[in-house]
Amino acid sequence: MSVESVQDGVQDLKVNEENQDEQQEDIVDPWNVASSSTAGVNYEKLIIKFGSSKIDEELLTRMEKIIQQPVHYFLRRGIFFSHRDMHTILNLYESKKPFFLYTGRGPSSEAMHLGHLIPFMFTKWLQDVFHVPLVIQMTDDEKFLWKDLTLEEANRLAYENAKDIIACGFDPEKTFLFSNFDFMGQCSNFYKNICRIQKCVNVNQVKNIFGFSDADCIGKIGFPAIQAAPSFSSTFPFIFDNRKDIPCLIPCAIDQDPYFRLTRDVAPRLGLQKPALLHSIFFPALQGAKSKMSASDANSSIFLTDTPKQIKDKINKYAFSGGGQTVEEHRAKGGNCDIDVSFQYLKFFMDNDERLEEIRKTYSSGELLTGFLKKELIEVLQKLVADHQQRRSQVTEEVVRQFMQPRKLKFAFSS
Amino acid sequence: MSVESVQDGVQDLKVNEENQDEQQEDIVDPWNVASSSTAGVNYEKLIIKFGSSKIDEELLTRMEKIIQQPVHYFLRRGIFFSHRDMHTILNLYESKKPFFLYTGRGPSSEAMHLGHLIPFMFTKWLQDVFHVPLVIQMTDDEKFLWKDLTLEEANRLAYENAKDIIACGFDPEKTFLFSNFDFMGQCSNFYKNICRIQKCVNVNQVKNIFGFSDADCIGKIGFPAIQAAPSFSSTFPFIFDNRKDIPCLIPCAIDQDPYFRLTRDVAPRLGLQKPALLHSIFFPALQGAKSKMSASDANSSIFLTDTPKQIKDKINKYAFSGGGQTVEEHRAKGGNCDIDVSFQYLKFFMDNDERLEEIRKTYSSGELLTGFLKKELIEVLQKLVADHQQRRSQVTEEVVRQFMQPRKLKFAFSS
Repeated sequence: MSVESVQDGVQDLKVNEENQDEQQEDIVDPWNVASSSTAGVNYEKLIIKFGSSKIDEELLTRMEKIIQQPVHYFLRRGIFFSHRDMHTILNLYESKKPFFLYTGRGPSSEAMHLGHLIPFMFTKWLQDVFHVPLVIQMTDDEKFLWKDLTLEEANRLAYENAKDIIACGFDPEKTFLFSNFDFMGQCSNFYKNICRIQKCVNVNQVKNIFGFSDADCIGKIGFPAIQAAPSFSSTFPFIFDNRKDIPCLIPCAIDQDPYFRLTRDVAPRLGLQKPALLHSIFFPALQGAKSKMSASDANSSIFLTDTPKQIKDKINKYAFSGGGQTVEEHRAKGGNCDIDVSFQYLKFFMDNDERLEEIRKTYSSGELLTGFLKKELIEVLQKLVADHQQRRSQVTEEVVRQFMQPRKLKFAFSS
Repeated sequence: MSVESVQDGVQDLKVNEENQDEQQEDIVDPWNVASSSTAGVNYEKLIIKFGSSKIDEELLTRMEKIIQQPVHYFLRRGIFFSHRDMHTILNLYESKKPFFLYTGRGPSSEAMHLGHLIPFMFTKWLQDVFHVPLVIQMTDDEKFLWKDLTLEEANRLAYENAKDIIACGFDPEKTFLFSNFDFMGQCSNFYKNICRIQKCVNVNQVKNIFGFSDADCIGKIGFPAIQAAPSFSSTFPFIFDNRKDIPCLIPCAIDQDPYFRLTRDVAPRLGLQKPALLHSIFFPALQGAKSKMSASDANSSIFLTDTPKQIKDKINKYAFSGGGQTVEEHRAKGGNCDIDVSFQYLKFFMDNDERLEEIRKTYSSGELLTGFLKKELIEVLQKLVADHQQRRSQVTEEVVRQFMQPRKLKFAFSS
């Protein structure tokens, strides 16, 4: 681990802040991410607005000491940049007390894209490092309520996406993956906790937090409780032996934070543990960081189903460049890594710190041209996607069934 | 069956209408029933307001012809006075096509009272006459959301009340009784249909229909879909072999109609059958027909757990009298059966038509005194409650489990 890299993340945040002093407020909620700045959302401001804490050097140093290994480069590079109560989770781990991981996905499209991998890659690392159980919620009900999808189609997409998630390498002995539509009919504790949460939250609150209106369907109004419920160990009596006091750590993109602010508000009133959080920045669209990559815009996305040629063509054609307009201009002024999408993608997917730093230096100085930067990225992504496709092809229906079976999971500590 | 008796019911409605010409509008929704008239709610006006149909002589004559026996005295006496699509149900029965019955109860109190028996007594008669399956929903979730009750207590009350309901004599081979909290975790079709309904209904609609506000908890907002879902046969795939086209008939007090107006509105948009309905009037409080009997006001109610002495004392002390202030006045002017609570209760529970008519005549003429009328009622109720208690004592935990087990039920017609 390099202190420079951590500072690199911090530096980025500062640059963004400067870029955005005069811009309009970013829009960040579970359904919209929009920034008027080419450098993207101002995450420093978001930390203040949401009331979370910055992942600082002290936290990372403590984490490395406790886990006795370097932290994931997502942490070093500021990709996971914000947290709530992560020190509490480290305290638990230090004292050999149990906790669990919770993350999820809204299955709105057949093919997942690169951005969707981020929370799962990171969650897998957390599971490997902390040896803890993980629950993964597929919100097929949410997608049915929000999108022009039939219930059957939303449910089918949950199972398709489950294969991509399993292909990220989760431990089948420590992972329970569920579709809301199916799990609701398998365990009454899920519905019971949903009702307990729904009794504590009024319409005014969800209007304020999520921007709902009276024209929204009543399913949307109640949904926040459905995403909140898996934060509580009592939702999964078969995993946690009916214990309701096991805390949870949620890695997610920061746009999901409103759900968990609400959850943390409600938890003490129910005598339950507040979930801790680790927040990531958004994965930018090919066109630039003003918006995040979205599966509903095929040109903004590289899908996990794309061929090597599709990847190459999309990067070459669409990836927003921070380089000069001409070779001469680029040589003279250098490239801007903060707004260059190809460089941003390398920060997400190139695990070799030295090589990344070399690219940053030579691209910034104008020595490395955009074409070469893109070529480097194309190679990284072609390998990443091909490897993913290979692993996904191994995920049979039987494997999916295994992950989705309510059952006991393995714990490192069970005291 | 006597045509007089039918006309008696109709006459009552007319009397009420006259009494109420100058009164304020009655309040009738699932949580409030209030009338400013001593004769109670104006049911003729309610039929017009709700857009339902009066149960008229033609319908009753047709029903008797089809079932080849007299209709229940609740129908003859105008206790069930309003319907939606009952002719459609009779058409089905005539052509040997299946339908099912659905009713329910919100378990808010340990002891049920006399008024709670009405829909169940009538539903049992419908089951016996039409030989059809019946589903009974215990809305423990509703009571948890609305009342100052823990979830565990609401769920426990559901099982306690289930014993009283089973004691009404339902056929175990044709009856599925369920708690929402428990059934939700047993069958994903329940939640799936709830979501389908919730997607079709917006906040504006439930505010208009049920009077909800932004200060209400988000659980209440979604609840109408939970009461609606059992109207659809696809909610119970284990009973109906996954068929979603089997229509439903719902006997209930008219205050529950808003739920089913909503259900009927949504059904065609989901490609599902509109439920038919049979509506009853309210069972008056001991203090008179301005309000219905309520378990939360012990002095207004006769409970199914009351002793013979408690029944006697409550009737003598509280039952609102339509008789004269003095014996002399009563002899001179006669009693008013329309506002006399003891006479109203006899209409609900005395199945002997001749005796009831004799009482009506002699009480109206002033010949029969209030004390004797009350004595007659006390005898009827003491026997009714004692018989109920005897049957309830036979309902073991094992019997409850049997009724609450999701399973196939018997059909007269399965085509």
